[in-house]
Amino acid sequence: MKNLKKRLTVAQIIVMYYLIAVMVSTILLLLPITQKPNAELTFIDAVFVSISAVTVTGLSPIDISQLLSVPGTFIFAVILQFGGIGIMAFGTMVWLVLGKKIGIRERILMTTEQNRINVAGIVRFIRMIFLFFVAMELIGAVVIGTYFMKFFPTWQEAYLQGFFASVSAMTNAGFDITGKSLIPFAKDYFVLTFNMVFYIIGSLGFPVLMEVREWLRHKEKSPFRFSLFTKITTVTFLLLIVIGTIVIFVMEYSQFYADKTWHQSFMYSLFYSISSRTGGMAITDISEFSLPTHFFLSFLMFIGASPSSAGGGIRTTTFAIMLLAIYYFAKGDKTIKVFKREIADEDIIKSFIVFTTAMLLCIVSVIILVCMEPAFSLMEILFEVASAFGTVGLSLGITPDLSTGGKVVIMILMFIGKIGIFTFLFFIGGKTVKHKHHYPKERLIIG
Amino acid sequence: MKNLKKRLTVAQIIVMYYLIAVMVSTILLLLPITQKPNAELTFIDAVFVSISAVTVTGLSPIDISQLLSVPGTFIFAVILQFGGIGIMAFGTMVWLVLGKKIGIRERILMTTEQNRINVAGIVRFIRMIFLFFVAMELIGAVVIGTYFMKFFPTWQEAYLQGFFASVSAMTNAGFDITGKSLIPFAKDYFVLTFNMVFYIIGSLGFPVLMEVREWLRHKEKSPFRFSLFTKITTVTFLLLIVIGTIVIFVMEYSQFYADKTWHQSFMYSLFYSISSRTGGMAITDISEFSLPTHFFLSFLMFIGASPSSAGGGIRTTTFAIMLLAIYYFAKGDKTIKVFKREIADEDIIKSFIVFTTAMLLCIVSVIILVCMEPAFSLMEILFEVASAFGTVGLSLGITPDLSTGGKVVIMILMFIGKIGIFTFLFFIGGKTVKHKHHYPKERLIIG
Ligand SMILES: [K+]
Ligand SMILES: [K+]
Repeated sequence: MKNLKKRLTVAQIIVMYYLIAVMVSTILLLLPITQKPNAELTFIDAVFVSISAVTVTGLSPIDISQLLSVPGTFIFAVILQFGGIGIMAFGTMVWLVLGKKIGIRERILMTTEQNRINVAGIVRFIRMIFLFFVAMELIGAVVIGTYFMKFFPTWQEAYLQGFFASVSAMTNAGFDITGKSLIPFAKDYFVLTFNMVFYIIGSLGFPVLMEVREWLRHKEKSPFRFSLFTKITTVTFLLLIVIGTIVIFVMEYSQFYADKTWHQSFMYSLFYSISSRTGGMAITDISEFSLPTHFFLSFLMFIGASPSSAGGGIRTTTFAIMLLAIYYFAKGDKTIKVFKREIADEDIIKSFIVFTTAMLLCIVSVIILVCMEPAFSLMEILFEVASAFGTVGLSLGITPDLSTGGKVVIMILMFIGKIGIFTFLFFIGGKTVKHKHHYPKERLIIG
Repeated sequence: MKNLKKRLTVAQIIVMYYLIAVMVSTILLLLPITQKPNAELTFIDAVFVSISAVTVTGLSPIDISQLLSVPGTFIFAVILQFGGIGIMAFGTMVWLVLGKKIGIRERILMTTEQNRINVAGIVRFIRMIFLFFVAMELIGAVVIGTYFMKFFPTWQEAYLQGFFASVSAMTNAGFDITGKSLIPFAKDYFVLTFNMVFYIIGSLGFPVLMEVREWLRHKEKSPFRFSLFTKITTVTFLLLIVIGTIVIFVMEYSQFYADKTWHQSFMYSLFYSISSRTGGMAITDISEFSLPTHFFLSFLMFIGASPSSAGGGIRTTTFAIMLLAIYYFAKGDKTIKVFKREIADEDIIKSFIVFTTAMLLCIVSVIILVCMEPAFSLMEILFEVASAFGTVGLSLGITPDLSTGGKVVIMILMFIGKIGIFTFLFFIGGKTVKHKHHYPKERLIIG
């Protein structure tokens, strides 16, 4: 481990993991056994779908329900695990390897000796994540497969559909083999609720799930204390869902919801609010929403899910710290105080770097895409960019009609959205150069 | 001064100055003597034009050439000074009063005794700014008025037009009394160059102008050293102009410039690149540009001009520090080294706070506007928002057709763009509460 770390930075390991996963997925997708007899798949589309699957985004230039054979469906489900489980394991691990105390009690995660992590601990940790995921996916497959019996002619098809729906929901992949996302189940509140619950589990972040597990097992007399990270990320996550639901409901009240019942309007708003964290399934033709909702959803997708979860974007924690920093700065306070803890200056700067870099990345991507794709409106392109960067997978329907150049931009965004802005910056930044000399400081006028 | 400072914060003084200036301007605009005999001006439009004039933005729901009488034109020219000179004086002063060493040698600006500023020094400083502005405006009026003799029937009209054009260019107001912005002079490279030179003087920032003045007077043997602030802001300013020109030229090459000569294409690109800093005059119908250019110009306008200049936006320094911070962070460096100096951590955080707050402000404004103005495209609204926040004044032509609510949003953006994000935050943040207690620090996962 030590030799490996010397030769490769953590950022390089993560990027390599995903690149290899993409290559393996592309090869698997191009195998004849994966495809239906008459399916056609170009190389660029195979790479696009692979990246989309490995990053669990769900954007696709082709209808995978037309592409995948029955064995192909199982192969694809395995590919989704690369991303779904991969990033959770990596995301959490990286922070532990880097020796950051993120507030999770490491003793329950792995054997640590004075903050040094051993291989046995890491293996145990990854196995735990893997087992949790697979168990949830299988439980979901049985539940939703049984429920699907009434919709599909044979039990085989019901369970195949149920299995894929469960895997897709748990990994937050956003892919579907119905060919119409979740639109056929738009009025089926059981299916919607199942998806929402699985989306939340997948996008809350593994560290949070671990702490909840510990909390449930907690039997000592002393009261259990959740870490600051878990508090901030969960509160932000819930607030985003509540605010998202309300805003979508209000904005579409006299528009798309004009002829819908109140509970349908509520369920749609709630579903899209949760789905825009990272789930990415659609239950209606989203282009029927009005421009304000499209723009608002784009911003929600840009924020994305919690750190070390299946989702992408700038992450909920980043957004929360940023808002808190602005609030405390306006009050003239030097430190951010929240839940009786203070936030380190370094974490504040990091939040701002993530937001700023992400915003510049998306702005440059939009400029490139509007140049390359004159057929699409600014809103369609903004939405696609936010969806790719947030690894969400919702789309106003332009994915299949993107030019090859446009597809490459979206692929890069999905990749960066998944590995995260930090890993991206450290990867392109290369080796750390330690400057020992210092220059005098000089103050500036800012803003 | 000390008593005044105790009772009012600097932010409150600045906001009050602009509010009073807006009120006075509104009254002046509504006077019969200001208006042409048959002119019609609603109250909301009077307030809009006042804010636009005082913030030297130049967006207008009405054609002021149809509104203003001859005396009205002079009154309007005076109103423009509130903004043009006001913010320069304020911007520079605030930082001096707050005791920040911004690298300008204070001894030339005012009498300082151990960093304490006296009233005589401030009066002298404001007088110097005032005289510089008025002198430039008069010189410009004579030069451009004389040149205009060939375009206008009488010398009176030529000099009136020349006077207003000079004032508008020097204050970077972007208002015109031709009724067609600078479109009639689109092929007149003398008028274009005159405007570009004045725009640059107005948007480079007063601290920079002061240092250039000192540099020109410098006669000692020791080499003159420009301050870090001047170096960063000027280099960024020039880079933005060069990059802006190239990008606009390339993006419109086979579009709007398809039937234009190379020098015309170049001049147009250069002019809009400079005008989008804060000038805000148009030499063509901007809506004829393609979507990529509209989006790119919006981003340039969002960045805006240099601090303590006639312009708004996040300011050039903010943008530069932000990019440098990301670059050095990616390299794994803890400090930003530039021009053999180091940037203070506090200034880095400030830059990020300005960018982030500005971005959130603009995003929220766009969401509100797309809700209120269903008739306009996202691009038209984005452009208008960026133009208002950058106090630039370019528009895709929607200003006259905004609803009252939409006008209010644009007015607020112009106001905040002018006073700057900091003053805005300190103003709404209220009094500084000093917390003496501390909580333990706890680290988080960011991004
Ligand atoms: K997804
Ligand atoms: K202007």
